[in-house]
Amino acid sequence: MGQLLDQIDCPADLRALSTGELEELAGEIRAELVATIQGIGGGGHLASNLGVVELTLALHRQFDSPRDRILWDVSHQVYVHKMVTGRRGRMSTIRQYEGLSGFADRRESPHDLFGAGHAGTSVSAATGMAVARDLRGEEHHVIAVIGDGAMTAGMALEGLNHAGHLGTNLIVVLNDNAMSISPNVGALSRNVNKLRIDPHYRRAKQELGGFVEQFPIARQMWQSARRVKASMRDMIVPASFWEQFGFEYYGPIDGHDLGELETTLAAIREVRGKPVLLHVLTEKGHGIPEAAADPVQSHSGTFWLKKPPAPAAPAPPPTYSKVFANAVGELIERDPRVVAVTAAMLEGTGLAATQRRHPERVFDVGIAEQHAVTFAAGLATQGMRPIAAIYSTFLQRGYDSIVHDVVVQNLPVVFALDRAGFVGDDGKTHQGFIDTSYLRCLPNMVVSAPKDEAELRDLLCTAVAHDGPFAVRYPRGAGPGAPADQPMRRIPVGRGELLREGRDAALIGYGASVAECVKAADALAERGVEARVINARFAKPLDEELILAAARETGAVVTAEENVRAGGFGEAVTALLHDHGLGDAFLLNLTMPDAIVDHGPQKVYRKVYDLDGEGIARRTVEALAGRAAPVGERAASLAG
Amino acid sequence: MGQLLDQIDCPADLRALSTGELEELAGEIRAELVATIQGIGGGGHLASNLGVVELTLALHRQFDSPRDRILWDVSHQVYVHKMVTGRRGRMSTIRQYEGLSGFADRRESPHDLFGAGHAGTSVSAATGMAVARDLRGEEHHVIAVIGDGAMTAGMALEGLNHAGHLGTNLIVVLNDNAMSISPNVGALSRNVNKLRIDPHYRRAKQELGGFVEQFPIARQMWQSARRVKASMRDMIVPASFWEQFGFEYYGPIDGHDLGELETTLAAIREVRGKPVLLHVLTEKGHGIPEAAADPVQSHSGTFWLKKPPAPAAPAPPPTYSKVFANAVGELIERDPRVVAVTAAMLEGTGLAATQRRHPERVFDVGIAEQHAVTFAAGLATQGMRPIAAIYSTFLQRGYDSIVHDVVVQNLPVVFALDRAGFVGDDGKTHQGFIDTSYLRCLPNMVVSAPKDEAELRDLLCTAVAHDGPFAVRYPRGAGPGAPADQPMRRIPVGRGELLREGRDAALIGYGASVAECVKAADALAERGVEARVINARFAKPLDEELILAAARETGAVVTAEENVRAGGFGEAVTALLHDHGLGDAFLLNLTMPDAIVDHGPQKVYRKVYDLDGEGIARRTVEALAGRAAPVGERAASLAG
Repeated sequence: MGQLLDQIDCPADLRALSTGELEELAGEIRAELVATIQGIGGGGHLASNLGVVELTLALHRQFDSPRDRILWDVSHQVYVHKMVTGRRGRMSTIRQYEGLSGFADRRESPHDLFGAGHAGTSVSAATGMAVARDLRGEEHHVIAVIGDGAMTAGMALEGLNHAGHLGTNLIVVLNDNAMSISPNVGALSRNVNKLRIDPHYRRAKQELGGFVEQFPIARQMWQSARRVKASMRDMIVPASFWEQFGFEYYGPIDGHDLGELETTLAAIREVRGKPVLLHVLTEKGHGIPEAAADPVQSHSGTFWLKKPPAPAAPAPPPTYSKVFANAVGELIERDPRVVAVTAAMLEGTGLAATQRRHPERVFDVGIAEQHAVTFAAGLATQGMRPIAAIYSTFLQRGYDSIVHDVVVQNLPVVFALDRAGFVGDDGKTHQGFIDTSYLRCLPNMVVSAPKDEAELRDLLCTAVAHDGPFAVRYPRGAGPGAPADQPMRRIPVGRGELLREGRDAALIGYGASVAECVKAADALAERGVEARVINARFAKPLDEELILAAARETGAVVTAEENVRAGGFGEAVTALLHDHGLGDAFLLNLTMPDAIVDHGPQKVYRKVYDLDGEGIARRTVEALAGRAAPVGERAASLAG
Repeated sequence: MGQLLDQIDCPADLRALSTGELEELAGEIRAELVATIQGIGGGGHLASNLGVVELTLALHRQFDSPRDRILWDVSHQVYVHKMVTGRRGRMSTIRQYEGLSGFADRRESPHDLFGAGHAGTSVSAATGMAVARDLRGEEHHVIAVIGDGAMTAGMALEGLNHAGHLGTNLIVVLNDNAMSISPNVGALSRNVNKLRIDPHYRRAKQELGGFVEQFPIARQMWQSARRVKASMRDMIVPASFWEQFGFEYYGPIDGHDLGELETTLAAIREVRGKPVLLHVLTEKGHGIPEAAADPVQSHSGTFWLKKPPAPAAPAPPPTYSKVFANAVGELIERDPRVVAVTAAMLEGTGLAATQRRHPERVFDVGIAEQHAVTFAAGLATQGMRPIAAIYSTFLQRGYDSIVHDVVVQNLPVVFALDRAGFVGDDGKTHQGFIDTSYLRCLPNMVVSAPKDEAELRDLLCTAVAHDGPFAVRYPRGAGPGAPADQPMRRIPVGRGELLREGRDAALIGYGASVAECVKAADALAERGVEARVINARFAKPLDEELILAAARETGAVVTAEENVRAGGFGEAVTALLHDHGLGDAFLLNLTMPDAIVDHGPQKVYRKVYDLDGEGIARRTVEALAGRAAPVGERAASLAG
């Protein structure tokens, strides 16, 4: 597979090909993309990469990477870019432990100018690069490729505004596939989606293509466009919108027509002294009917490439996301105050199914975490009980809204943080590694994590009944498999749970680590250590009584959590022990490292960082043994 | 003063007045605003309140607060609103300890629907309120009043996009005074400013006013407007921009013409089923020549109302902001890699003066903290050494950019956090109370705070030489008065400083608390306790050697910092002691409370929370005494 592809080791090799050969190459790339995704079991981002094959080739022919800086927003669509920048041979390792990242990564290649994973950062980073170029008197192009979904993120608009103000050379390629992860939300996107569903769309698109020679075309289109309701994303009248940010607008052009792409990019390359926005229309999954048919499912799932389960295999346990979404549905049904809000994570949080049943009570606000949180705050002031379902890593973007709008006013907003802790294959930009720290420092905030699926339900039911901000974090994927069909019951806020008696040590787990502490206690019992196991449930407020009793009665407290140590649950316990003169009972805080954790299976990283049952048991034994040693050696042992 | 004003106890009273009386009332309000600001010594936000006198009166006549929800973005412009909603009698206490807040505050009045202090939140909160209204089948209006500066914040645009998508009843009043705190930055604002400087502006404005009857006017204006370069903020062509977000556009109207305001608001009140944007042109400082003359200075300073210093009085020491700005200037002059970036805080950070000297090296990106940080990250990838100068409280909004763009990629961006710790009169929305926590949990990040002005210079010089992210926090206002004209010198990262020897206890201060620890040591010496004093300088990495030696040699460690305890410097020290078997040496973490701190002098709050010299000394003595008691009593003593 890939005779032409065999000749491509770097972008310069692309420039040797004829247009006919390029089109053949695009076909080879598509076939290899499908094979790659199939080879890694169906993960990764197939449809979005299929959508940018021609765009990637055209950019690398018309610009000179890495001298010209090509930045990919979110950068889940860089597979083709990786294939033509010398990484084709390692594509089978993509998103695998110690393999290629599924995103752009500055460590991986000089062609990866800016790492990403979250949406909407590329315009700002590109503006910084353009300004640096100008200050240093250098001459090269800076190109940001950004999807239409990412463009609705507030920070992307902030970046446009500043770049337009500076008036420097900068090219923003708007890769408009009318989808972000889920169909875009917002007035900005409604009209273009309407057009795409329209059977006349294809023809209209061909006609639009004919306009390409007459840049800028928007002027002529304006009059006829006044008949339809204007909207930021209406592709008939976009020029005015981008021009108002100070950009010169080109397009829209067909993102699968290599000739059109190259002609346009060549023209844009000559523009000087102002930023340019090129509007390119692409189709997610283009060229592969199965991927184009359902781009939402194909975005990351590519379910049609996954191996079907063996006929006799038991159904896998439901994911935390599914349990969460079901619980939200139940809460909506029994409490008219409950609504759910998410930010372009309808599928990922599981809420898509809930929204189908309760369309008026589940809100997807698009890639707009700040708005999502403050929108929820507004709802809460009116007596509603909003549940803001946002991945741990993306909630970082709503941090000021949490502090300034929710916490300062002590409003009852529930934060449901999916993908807390080790995130798996998405890797370093997506780790849920700090939420306990950035939330625990906030007054009024309840910070909690369930030990299993059933407790997630109970904590959600507790949270919507609580008169203040309440966060619940839970990991990506499936939990231990606790039954998730029992009635929800409220848990007293700040009350933990004794899971196992023991006098030799106390293992206090928080969230996903509780199950590992139970396994560790089993392993310790085999080594003659009787460990007490506590399910903390709350990092704030702590169950002081339960924890202090464990400290007094065992004299050896080990905490385990999937968060960094600084500011995490473990430090909270350590401070508590100190305040009560029980500092001596502190043994060990097991946490995620004070380092950026890469991609790879959660299980692997739990093992690497001693957060699985075996690791917790071993570290506990070592620490108990180290206790007998004098202080200096103890320290060395603890650090080991 | 204020015969008509004497009759106004609530908004309903306004409706009894004739237009002539209203205009008289506006005059009385202006006089009383000036007197109020003078009475509190010249603080507060005079010019912006003078700009919304008529708008506030018109809103309260045409809408029925609090049944109709009027939200004020940032809400520094609510003084008039407070005066006419029953709080006139307490206006002399505004921004004073235990007095009225300088912002909207839900606890203060049912007319304050949503508290604020940061910009750009009102549209999101109003959208939440509108959705809650619709879900509950209620009927009332929701009105967000937002300034043109705040509108450039990404989250405001996110809110517009969602509100436009929902298509519900919602009124956004764009209070366009062509200024945020500093003149707005961005393509969005350039043209309107140009117009205002133009001597023809007044006449143009009058002509525009004539269009008011013919809503929407933008259609007719479009053609003529094509002759000038379009820009989001160009007031000639704004309709299309807002309409593309799904809003119906009205205006622009003269915000100082009560008749025009009321007629327009009455018309808008009848719009159903869609969000409306009303564009109101106002003048900051309107009606008071001194305030209108220099709205930047008058925004918060109102320097012309401040008492002149006594002729013989010595010059006050320079603020940390001024010392910072001077240091940045020096760094720019000696290192071509250094640039400074701020987000609408040119005046507040002191960088306005630096920008005048180095216009090409100091960037104000407008109210856009996310963009500011990622823009800096982009600069850093190209070998530059950007210093992002953002108040501690506002940096919260750039949190994901810090994590995702700077920390994950380990880029050398310097964060200069002004107004860390107790913030003073701005109060709860502006406290710099959590930055140590939200930064210390980040891998690669250096977290530091100088003990005085000279050390701020040294830390900045250290920071720009460091190959990774580096945060320096410093308090609002003046420091201890250390000479700030000595050459800067690099400090080894993670190296603290022994300031005073002592064997009875170790006081470890971080940042502003170091000077208080020194005072505490003096007070303790008088009571016979010889306290060692350490200047920590770094919360991450800690000077482990220095701190451990202090713990070993004194057996009684007290930490002091202006940050909450959870995740702060004190917890870091506590964890360190534990890891080295020195848990017994822990005595006390003195910190800001786990509560929202209100407005009032820094000095007062330092006293209230035992973070001044006397408080630190007293708490140290108490804790030392408590040590002798058994565990239960010790705990009670420590908690007391």
